[in-house]
Amino acid sequence: MPYFDAASSAPLHPVARQALQASLDEGWADPARLYREGRRARLLLDAAREAAADAVGCRPDELVFTSSGTRALHAGISGALAGRRRAGSHLVVSAVEHSAVLHAAEGRPVTEVPVDRWGAVSPGVFAEALREDTALACLQSANHEVGTEQPVAEVAGLCRTAGVPLLVDAAQSLGWGPVDGDWSLLTASAHKWGGPAGVGLLVVRKGVRFAPQDPADERESGRAPGFENIPAIVAAAASLRAVRDEAESEARRLRELVDRIRTRVPELVPDVEVVGDPVRRLPHLVTFSCLYVDGETVLHDLDREGFSVSSGSSCTSSTLTPSHVLRAMGVLSEGNVRVSLPSGTAEEDVDRFLEVLPGVVAGVRGRLGAPTEAAPTSAASRALVVDALGKRCPVPVIELAKVIGDVPVGGTVTVLADDEAARLDIPAWCEMRDQEYVGESPAPGGTAYVVRRRG
Amino acid sequence: MPYFDAASSAPLHPVARQALQASLDEGWADPARLYREGRRARLLLDAAREAAADAVGCRPDELVFTSSGTRALHAGISGALAGRRRAGSHLVVSAVEHSAVLHAAEGRPVTEVPVDRWGAVSPGVFAEALREDTALACLQSANHEVGTEQPVAEVAGLCRTAGVPLLVDAAQSLGWGPVDGDWSLLTASAHKWGGPAGVGLLVVRKGVRFAPQDPADERESGRAPGFENIPAIVAAAASLRAVRDEAESEARRLRELVDRIRTRVPELVPDVEVVGDPVRRLPHLVTFSCLYVDGETVLHDLDREGFSVSSGSSCTSSTLTPSHVLRAMGVLSEGNVRVSLPSGTAEEDVDRFLEVLPGVVAGVRGRLGAPTEAAPTSAASRALVVDALGKRCPVPVIELAKVIGDVPVGGTVTVLADDEAARLDIPAWCEMRDQEYVGESPAPGGTAYVVRRRG
Repeated sequence: MPYFDAASSAPLHPVARQALQASLDEGWADPARLYREGRRARLLLDAAREAAADAVGCRPDELVFTSSGTRALHAGISGALAGRRRAGSHLVVSAVEHSAVLHAAEGRPVTEVPVDRWGAVSPGVFAEALREDTALACLQSANHEVGTEQPVAEVAGLCRTAGVPLLVDAAQSLGWGPVDGDWSLLTASAHKWGGPAGVGLLVVRKGVRFAPQDPADERESGRAPGFENIPAIVAAAASLRAVRDEAESEARRLRELVDRIRTRVPELVPDVEVVGDPVRRLPHLVTFSCLYVDGETVLHDLDREGFSVSSGSSCTSSTLTPSHVLRAMGVLSEGNVRVSLPSGTAEEDVDRFLEVLPGVVAGVRGRLGAPTEAAPTSAASRALVVDALGKRCPVPVIELAKVIGDVPVGGTVTVLADDEAARLDIPAWCEMRDQEYVGESPAPGGTAYVVRRRG
Repeated sequence: MPYFDAASSAPLHPVARQALQASLDEGWADPARLYREGRRARLLLDAAREAAADAVGCRPDELVFTSSGTRALHAGISGALAGRRRAGSHLVVSAVEHSAVLHAAEGRPVTEVPVDRWGAVSPGVFAEALREDTALACLQSANHEVGTEQPVAEVAGLCRTAGVPLLVDAAQSLGWGPVDGDWSLLTASAHKWGGPAGVGLLVVRKGVRFAPQDPADERESGRAPGFENIPAIVAAAASLRAVRDEAESEARRLRELVDRIRTRVPELVPDVEVVGDPVRRLPHLVTFSCLYVDGETVLHDLDREGFSVSSGSSCTSSTLTPSHVLRAMGVLSEGNVRVSLPSGTAEEDVDRFLEVLPGVVAGVRGRLGAPTEAAPTSAASRALVVDALGKRCPVPVIELAKVIGDVPVGGTVTVLADDEAARLDIPAWCEMRDQEYVGESPAPGGTAYVVRRRG
């Protein structure tokens, strides 16, 4: 049963399991105690810290273990901001950071640096956002939804010049290799590389002003309160080393499989947009969006076929809004599918996915009455206003596609919709279909989107 | 090798180990995902929540899993205070709460309710501390250093009458049974009952105003950010159920062993004070302090004999101050030893501890030149001022004991000391020796403690 959602959580690596089991007997005691059980626990913790620091490329005393990647981000952001209180409180983040970063930034003055259509920031644009009162900048090493790598080393250099510390969220990439560049803080999450849940990393380079904001606690240099979870920490460090040993060859192999998906999906499935940078990207992750498909149904149908994937479509989020990453990139969000291959993914499973996908997408489209590739023109209706109020993604786009053939070239059609995804998907459809997106305006009960027919 | 420090961390219960290993295969995926791996993880999480809620005596939707007991306390206190912002910001805590509670209270208006010599608060005194602007009260179910149970049910009733929510830190007692009474919030820590590290519980009763203070996160009802550690959560819930099944018989057995220690230690070792309530106490925990002994050496020597215990003496803390619990109780802090028996402790190990202890204590006293029971009077020196400046605990008390026999009845001796522990231990020595403690005053380089000889 192929699991293709490693970017959410990777299955436990065999080395992690082994290390976890081996350290359950030695790692349960309080490492702050001086008796033998405590000393043993301390030895395990120290060794894990050294191994993790080695993989990150930092000093052991710069690295603490937190209880999750989210906690590492919260502690890193709040501690760095507090440490730079005198400089100001302004924060610079990319628009495609993980929601944990964006939530930690809420209530503060924030500049979100836009990304290009591939999902990457421009170092120059990022640097322009840095102000006199900027206390901290945050940039992910690679995006969790589309896999695009960010120009971290260049941005880190520009931040250094500006005297602003850069925090790098390396959650998606640390298993593949260290993060280059002169960054100041770094965070990661063990269960993303096949380590156990319950372990994050927070690295604060020597010389970076840092003032922990949690209540005082003696553990982990005062930066991560709560009793240390040593067996999980040992397993996290051991598996990081293990995945790094395999990283080069496994990256090459998975990159090929992902390339196959990137190439074949648009050939096999009509009206698909593959998103994210085709070259500067994580080796194991690819995202594409299918016109006229709703994400929840396609996920459900793929699950029935045995494939576990995720989606940034609005219908699959608890807030019923499309992923902020896809929004920031300005790409189609409907029928969104993210495939992220865990280490060891079999070639046959990828091939079978490519076999199954076209039928699944066609099935969803058929049930929704979506236009087929052949003939979008058909209707007798000459209505230039499409009322899709109350209809959820992807119906507004389907209705638009149904009538566009009836619009005279140079004429317009107006789509009335109240689903938030339409704001993203109608312009994206226009770009894919080479139609002109004129704009939106408020309308009773929703928004009116105007599209002019080009050809 | 007998480990007698269960109150710091208990060895992993066999059921916890079994449950952890069994759920590594099913519990690694994201429980928020709808594919089969996610659904399986969700089922495990839901079942664990029901089991834990059943053991606590609450509804499953009142309970969330945090990454540690410390985190549960931090989140519980900050969330309850924020939820009651309109009432005020005043906090009432007992003087013997865990340091995580006291640290979380820092920077807020706090009333510390004193305890009696057994370590318990009086419900009436606790209730008197509640004010118009009190937002929250905190009381542990039982003390972690001396084992004394607090009158939680009575205090909860009084808090309810006053309209103030009560948070109960049940870290030390939850394995032994549910916490009675009409409390509002409750916290606990799995590794104290033989569950794995990395799991805490936070219970917030329906109707309690609560506003989480961490950055927004969808996990655990927004009360505990970060990816759920499901295998550990499953193990925590399974082991809680298992220890509860054994609790009644094991409590009876350990209570007897602890009674043996409480009775025999003062018979076997001269100049010992057993502290904490002899009846209303945790079944497995006993604390005593030995005059003329330094805690670090006695711990070290016991470790060499194979016994792992902890201490609240100043020399064993990173701050070089005696435990705030012993200080609040006004009992001797020097030579402090806490014995907390894990489930399954063998009777023979306790007996061997009782065999070994007298020699260990005598050895430490011998090396320090402490007065023997027989003849504290000896010295030719008639000096009525003892200069113990620069000497660490227990030396100031040893020097005092050496000269007291030379002081005429009704006369005084002044001890000059700069070790913080003397402030606690000289009065405690006076009480044990039936001498009159006159008081203290500042002196050059330290403090002058005046003692009058009674008999």
